[in-house]
Amino acid sequence: MKICVLGGDGYCGWATALHLSNQGHSVSIVDNFIRRGWDDQLGVRTLTPIRSLADRLAVWNGLTGKSIPIFIGDINDYEFLAGAIEATRPDAIVHFAEQRSAPYSMIDREHAVFTQVNNVVGTLNLLFAIREIRPDCHLVKLGTMGEYGTPNIDIEEGYLAIEHNGRRDVLPFPKQPGSFYHLSKVHDSHNIMFACKIWGIRATDLNQGVVYGTVTPEVEMDETLVNRFDYDEVFGTVLNRFCVQAAAGHPLTVYGRGGQTRGYLDIRDTVKCIELACLNPAAPGEFRVFNQFTEQFTVLELAHMVRDAGREIGLKVKIDHIPDPRVEAEEHYFNAKHSKLIDLGLTPHLLSASLLDSLMNVAVKYGDRIDTSLFLPQVNWRNPRNDRRSVPAAAGVLS
Amino acid sequence: MKICVLGGDGYCGWATALHLSNQGHSVSIVDNFIRRGWDDQLGVRTLTPIRSLADRLAVWNGLTGKSIPIFIGDINDYEFLAGAIEATRPDAIVHFAEQRSAPYSMIDREHAVFTQVNNVVGTLNLLFAIREIRPDCHLVKLGTMGEYGTPNIDIEEGYLAIEHNGRRDVLPFPKQPGSFYHLSKVHDSHNIMFACKIWGIRATDLNQGVVYGTVTPEVEMDETLVNRFDYDEVFGTVLNRFCVQAAAGHPLTVYGRGGQTRGYLDIRDTVKCIELACLNPAAPGEFRVFNQFTEQFTVLELAHMVRDAGREIGLKVKIDHIPDPRVEAEEHYFNAKHSKLIDLGLTPHLLSASLLDSLMNVAVKYGDRIDTSLFLPQVNWRNPRNDRRSVPAAAGVLS
Repeated sequence: MKICVLGGDGYCGWATALHLSNQGHSVSIVDNFIRRGWDDQLGVRTLTPIRSLADRLAVWNGLTGKSIPIFIGDINDYEFLAGAIEATRPDAIVHFAEQRSAPYSMIDREHAVFTQVNNVVGTLNLLFAIREIRPDCHLVKLGTMGEYGTPNIDIEEGYLAIEHNGRRDVLPFPKQPGSFYHLSKVHDSHNIMFACKIWGIRATDLNQGVVYGTVTPEVEMDETLVNRFDYDEVFGTVLNRFCVQAAAGHPLTVYGRGGQTRGYLDIRDTVKCIELACLNPAAPGEFRVFNQFTEQFTVLELAHMVRDAGREIGLKVKIDHIPDPRVEAEEHYFNAKHSKLIDLGLTPHLLSASLLDSLMNVAVKYGDRIDTSLFLPQVNWRNPRNDRRSVPAAAGVLS
Repeated sequence: MKICVLGGDGYCGWATALHLSNQGHSVSIVDNFIRRGWDDQLGVRTLTPIRSLADRLAVWNGLTGKSIPIFIGDINDYEFLAGAIEATRPDAIVHFAEQRSAPYSMIDREHAVFTQVNNVVGTLNLLFAIREIRPDCHLVKLGTMGEYGTPNIDIEEGYLAIEHNGRRDVLPFPKQPGSFYHLSKVHDSHNIMFACKIWGIRATDLNQGVVYGTVTPEVEMDETLVNRFDYDEVFGTVLNRFCVQAAAGHPLTVYGRGGQTRGYLDIRDTVKCIELACLNPAAPGEFRVFNQFTEQFTVLELAHMVRDAGREIGLKVKIDHIPDPRVEAEEHYFNAKHSKLIDLGLTPHLLSASLLDSLMNVAVKYGDRIDTSLFLPQVNWRNPRNDRRSVPAAAGVLS
């Protein structure tokens, strides 16, 4: 099918674009490279030395004979976005093109406003473009499990059957997001649900868990295709950061008691889930929600797993509990359903010692690029202004 | 107490500012007069000839000796907003300063994006300003009953106790808003709830029903103080529009079958509810929700009441059912709780024939200002672009 990947130069987007291309789909990428700009802005860089998108796609074409056209621009610019959709006439649009870091959104007012405007307006533009240009196209939108927060009841996939005062209804699951970023995703979900209702748009909201890993079969084909691997406190997801900390001989930074439980998945499952959603589209007018993760862990469980796997390969791994910079429950009930993607055929890659091992080996391989000053949190939810941008120069590199 | 009214030149804002001033509070107004600009943009005008805010306040000062300082600017401009809060050091901030019309938000993409950005960013700015400048100040935010939509269960005030799979929690009531405007209020509610949690802000979200009436004791003191009275399809609330239609000899425009049930309140109760919320602030960190309305009606019930009251004063009133330009249930269950403001002391002005009578007499008094071409809906929810702005010249005035 014809699939347009918005944000196809980012972490999940790049892996997804190559996977879909490799599966024989006709893929195009829309990106404005702002993710690379945020690295510059924050004084950080991906552990892996990623290449320009043009270089990546030239190599991909050389290896596979498949070409992936690029549309360079900002989906907040409606004319640009409409032009890209007009040109590609996609059957599905996979929408990764958002600011996706909670700490980034909590730096200060400017970053909070940017995150919400960027994400909400980009998605509104996309809804109008689909309605005007390609009304039968299936929107596959990346949401987050963080939309739900940590309620004291089981989390269902998007909707909850409620009985109240003797009457029943099935209503959107109540949301309690935990950052201005997570809030932007909740806003998106409400906007998309409404567009499905009034315009008959077909949409799948993928409430994704925390993604880990960096290797997918496609990016392994050539060093030029290497994916991002973020380990800094702003964009680095927790398991990736732990593996780099272990490789650098730095204590793992567990926030607070570490009882925070979240859903996790391997990036190899991310790309498969996206394809499954595309191949099995929502019905016209349907706003479908999948919880896209494969396992639940507490942060402390992950730390223990990294410590144990590190020891196996000769690393000394310490675990530090540092004050939680976020406002969140450090111990809580968490039981989230995630059967719909399994029902569509997902076979999960569960977290294993060998995966942790390979992640730590990636970290060792690129050890001279590790900046340990990026490990410690500098964005505190309790402050309306965090001077995150005045990062000191690299305090130390892997010895 | 010191109360700052954002949007104090608008319909509810003006009545509220005068009421609070009359009660002895130290009131200031923040407004950028954009509401007057929208009239120009849409080719409409209030039925009542409102005066400039400066004229209004000069007369108010002359009548009562009370002065109300004005801060002219846009709360989307953070430096301006912060300056106004710094200057006034309020105990409570009443936030009316949003785009509040559902049809306006549904005109096209541009109006949808404007509404959401304007409302969400203004409120985010306000939250940051409170946190940075006046952290103990009570935010009294105007939301809407339309945030809830029309679920098939009773609507509670903000939260719902849920039992699910043998576990319990009290969660935010699920939201199903029915326009890009209503969605902006849902986004605000989520953002404010989060700010209360992370920063200990005290906030009351007033989910207001549809307001009717134009007269409050203060605006009656002098013709210069007259309040807005909108009857056009974009900004005119339904009961006000029906009364003007009746006075103009135009059929009442019921959308669809008319079974749409909503909560309603008299503007005299609006101003009292705001004062009650200010006098009884939320606790630090509390996100409190009141459903601010006094009675439920279907649209058809209102049409019948206006028809009957009109006949009493010699008007011939016809009721037309026209295709519903909105996407909404035309018959549905609706039972919304609204006891919290009553518990604080609200004594409702229930809808009466004498109130309808007085509203129709206002319409008759200003009959030469009625433009009947503004009655019929030109904004259809199903269209992504409505050429609302090309309104024909006045098609007829009250004969």
